[in-house]
Amino acid sequence: MTPPLVSRRAVLVGGAGLAGLGIGAATVGLTREPDVAPGSGTLPFYGARQSGITTPPTAHAQYIGLDLVDPADVPTLQGVLNLWTQDAARLTQAQPSLSDTEPELATLAGNLTATVGVGDRIFRAPALTRLRPSWLQPLPSFSIDRLDPRWGQTDLLLSLASDDPVVLAHATRMLTASVRRSVRVRWVQRGFRNSPGMTTGTMRNLFGQVDGTVQPASDTYDNLLWDDGAEQSWMADGTSLVLRRISMNMDTWEAIDRRGRELSMGRTLDTGAPLTGTDEFDDPVFSATRGGIPVIPASSHIARAHRRHDREQFLRRAYNYDDPPEPGSADTSNSGLLFAAYQRNPVTQYVPVQQRLADHDDLNTWTTPIGSAVYAMLPGATESRPLGASLFDAAGRGSGGAPQK
Amino acid sequence: MTPPLVSRRAVLVGGAGLAGLGIGAATVGLTREPDVAPGSGTLPFYGARQSGITTPPTAHAQYIGLDLVDPADVPTLQGVLNLWTQDAARLTQAQPSLSDTEPELATLAGNLTATVGVGDRIFRAPALTRLRPSWLQPLPSFSIDRLDPRWGQTDLLLSLASDDPVVLAHATRMLTASVRRSVRVRWVQRGFRNSPGMTTGTMRNLFGQVDGTVQPASDTYDNLLWDDGAEQSWMADGTSLVLRRISMNMDTWEAIDRRGRELSMGRTLDTGAPLTGTDEFDDPVFSATRGGIPVIPASSHIARAHRRHDREQFLRRAYNYDDPPEPGSADTSNSGLLFAAYQRNPVTQYVPVQQRLADHDDLNTWTTPIGSAVYAMLPGATESRPLGASLFDAAGRGSGGAPQK
Ligand code: HEM
Ligand code: HEM
Repeated sequence: MTPPLVSRRAVLVGGAGLAGLGIGAATVGLTREPDVAPGSGTLPFYGARQSGITTPPTAHAQYIGLDLVDPADVPTLQGVLNLWTQDAARLTQAQPSLSDTEPELATLAGNLTATVGVGDRIFRAPALTRLRPSWLQPLPSFSIDRLDPRWGQTDLLLSLASDDPVVLAHATRMLTASVRRSVRVRWVQRGFRNSPGMTTGTMRNLFGQVDGTVQPASDTYDNLLWDDGAEQSWMADGTSLVLRRISMNMDTWEAIDRRGRELSMGRTLDTGAPLTGTDEFDDPVFSATRGGIPVIPASSHIARAHRRHDREQFLRRAYNYDDPPEPGSADTSNSGLLFAAYQRNPVTQYVPVQQRLADHDDLNTWTTPIGSAVYAMLPGATESRPLGASLFDAAGRGSGGAPQK
Repeated sequence: MTPPLVSRRAVLVGGAGLAGLGIGAATVGLTREPDVAPGSGTLPFYGARQSGITTPPTAHAQYIGLDLVDPADVPTLQGVLNLWTQDAARLTQAQPSLSDTEPELATLAGNLTATVGVGDRIFRAPALTRLRPSWLQPLPSFSIDRLDPRWGQTDLLLSLASDDPVVLAHATRMLTASVRRSVRVRWVQRGFRNSPGMTTGTMRNLFGQVDGTVQPASDTYDNLLWDDGAEQSWMADGTSLVLRRISMNMDTWEAIDRRGRELSMGRTLDTGAPLTGTDEFDDPVFSATRGGIPVIPASSHIARAHRRHDREQFLRRAYNYDDPPEPGSADTSNSGLLFAAYQRNPVTQYVPVQQRLADHDDLNTWTTPIGSAVYAMLPGATESRPLGASLFDAAGRGSGGAPQK
């Protein structure tokens, strides 16, 4: 048989920096070797920083919130993190986990990443109290919030992402079943974007909007995204995650016309360009007026969300959710965003923007925050230092704790 | 710029007959033109027979069970089917539906299919009573059943499938919002396989088994799958669907060893070959013994499920489900199969096999049917004859009923 010719357009593209430009896995997939399916690759697990934050967003994501049976039990916490390190290091490389019960489901990774964070409650353990980052606390409550404790703060976050839903189901099973004696799953939040290779460019949310255009430039990550260890040295190369579950009311949204929708955002629906421009990546001109009236309303989402200071920036990495309406409810949909914002310090970077949106944002008419949690996303693991090693070192525990079942 | 070279391996493969061989969209995708993403195509909507039954299974499926506000209201039923025809004919071809509220989400189809069936209750309407296919009735109850009415019989089934989850969410929204005054969504069941292009060959379920190997040959479809109109002439080119929601207990399954699992199925976990063969598609030899003991246990799933007569065949088109455990439950998973079996007559083709499995099947140790419904899947629509036209003709109503909102 004639060997396949390789397309000249097949270019290998390193993914890490692209997310910041709103360019996701899809684009990377489109410049693939012709006989390699988009999304079928692997992303590194080991590294100074965890994967799954600036790596290109995959088609599917699963956020799993877990509570320690005893939140002050530091050895158990360490055991859980050791086990996750061991197993995620294998699963992300398309290898079965050590005690994999369905190894046939582990032969593909689909760019699987497993990214781990800890909530504030674990720092109540005496050995850890002084190690809590000062910003690791619940967000202030906002007038727009209708928070359901069902989607609230947990001790641990396991954030899994893959371009393949079977891989995601299997990784979820392996990483939660192995620790079931030590932790309880409080919630699972599942999100999606387009399938790998299906679309190029920025994702759309279920309102049809281009969502994820304006992001901090990747050369600001060292300053705005990754912790430098100045406050808590163990957090160097970690970051923080604000995870908000925001429901989007399809019924009321669909009741207004396109013009009304575009004014509420300050951007067009077709290309996602600001109302003052023609291209998605044009800078919005908030000062522009037509007949004395601002072209981008001052009350629109982007006018309100736009940074007032360089510090007010974060990496947004949202996924759509579309769950069946709750049994017995009269709702016609149960859709929204799993809104994930990464930044070094949520108090100084995220909260001012969220407060401004809570004070006023035209988009609030159709969106409601129903879940909220904040996590310290751990520094990366290396082959000799599992997830959490710097935390346990700082607590004087060393990183050699034996895995606990 | 040099134009891309086209891989010699890029072969266009017609999909329709492949499903019967257990070969799905994935395989089709792998033999694609190099710069066309797998799964990004369209499948016909119009035709003598509905798409979504023998067309290659897509990565994602959503079964939506709906009840008419008044099940005896035939004009409303007709209006709903007219609207679905109109909108599905467009959405499946990557066109916005007529009153599409998020047309930007309709520019991709990802092999979207919309396949519609009706439940027995609609035939209580006096005009339709004599038109009920005799087999359209609830299945007998089986000793293994633990049916939750939440996943029970509905008046209508809208079965959507796409290789893209955003497309599926949008199509779900368009096709349910347009009819919300006439019908109530009772349940939504979401299932998945691997992402397009990720794997070749038969899918695996969450137990890790190769699932879908033995299927009726496509040259038997005219006899075993598609209705010939002999009993109810309006059903010609329609078929029936048995949809069972079957939970799979991961905890107890994972507690037994590989050998035990393979014996319970009669097939190996790695290749899916029968225990008497080496290749997935080898015919199992149920009479083979080793040391006087059957190699494939007589109580194994395939020994029990294997047809005793040619008539006992149906097209299986299962999807995995993996939902979050019910809030407050102590379950570590909520996984299983959306088991879909298509056949001309469920009473003579499906029920004998299901009864045999209920009487005994080693697999019953780990699987539990928790939902069950049976539908008459309508003949296909054409540009001049919407879904259900032959039914309404037979009822003396003509097919011109105006769409009802
Ligand atoms: C369901 C809720 C939300 C929806 C549907 C939504 C949608 C959008 C869309 C379509 C854009 C314009 C394109 C882009 O730059 O991504 C945007 C921009 C933005 N959003 Fe949101 N958003 C939501 C919630 C939030 C929240 C909770 C925050 C932070 C507290 C936020 C912060 C931002 C920021 C900072 C921008 C860029 C503004 C600029 O500088 O132009 N959004 N959002
Ligand atoms: C969660 C429940 C089930 C699981 C996990 C399951 C799994 C499997 C697997 C792995 C095979 C072997 C490969 C293949 O031919 O597909 C198989 C075969 C088969 N299954 Fe199931 N199955 C389930 C339920 C059912 C039900 C409810 C029926 C019908 C009542 C059924 C009918 C069959 C048939 C007819 C075969 C082919 C047997 C042969 O002739 O070799 N299965 N199933």
